[in-house]
Amino acid sequence: MHSSNIEFFGYFAAILTTAAFLPQLIKTLKTKKAEDVSLVTLIMFLCGVFFWIIYGYKISSLPILIANIITFTLNFLILFSKIYYARK
Amino acid sequence: MHSSNIEFFGYFAAILTTAAFLPQLIKTLKTKKAEDVSLVTLIMFLCGVFFWIIYGYKISSLPILIANIITFTLNFLILFSKIYYARK
Repeated sequence: MHSSNIEFFGYFAAILTTAAFLPQLIKTLKTKKAEDVSLVTLIMFLCGVFFWIIYGYKISSLPILIANIITFTLNFLILFSKIYYARK
Repeated sequence: MHSSNIEFFGYFAAILTTAAFLPQLIKTLKTKKAEDVSLVTLIMFLCGVFFWIIYGYKISSLPILIANIITFTLNFLILFSKIYYARK
């Protein structure tokens, strides 16, 4: 198999696991609650994604950097919305 | 910086973004609901993780394979629990 075909799986995987958090953010903003979404999961995941950003920077991998900056932003907004709606 | 120090960030990131889904599974099993967890997010994420597994296999990366098989299992169990409790 050509290496470009192998890379396709990686890029497709990265797009899906990054874009996946957009429907969660939209749902949270629409229903104005994210009670069932685990706070510990969000915090652990954000910390992990933060380390992926550092790793991507250190190894100079633009795909890792871009995918994880978007994932971090989406999950940060989900966490922020969850806390915001819980306080209202 | 030594390359082993750089790799540390990658492994630490992988452990965190994998283990992060365990608290969500525990919360869902305890509260017996995951109404606020987006179904579209879970399905997109599972598809993405599935492609990470294929990618990890193709490039013979054991860390990518192991991390994504665990992530897939945890998220599959969250999806299964969400559907199961919604039907009850």
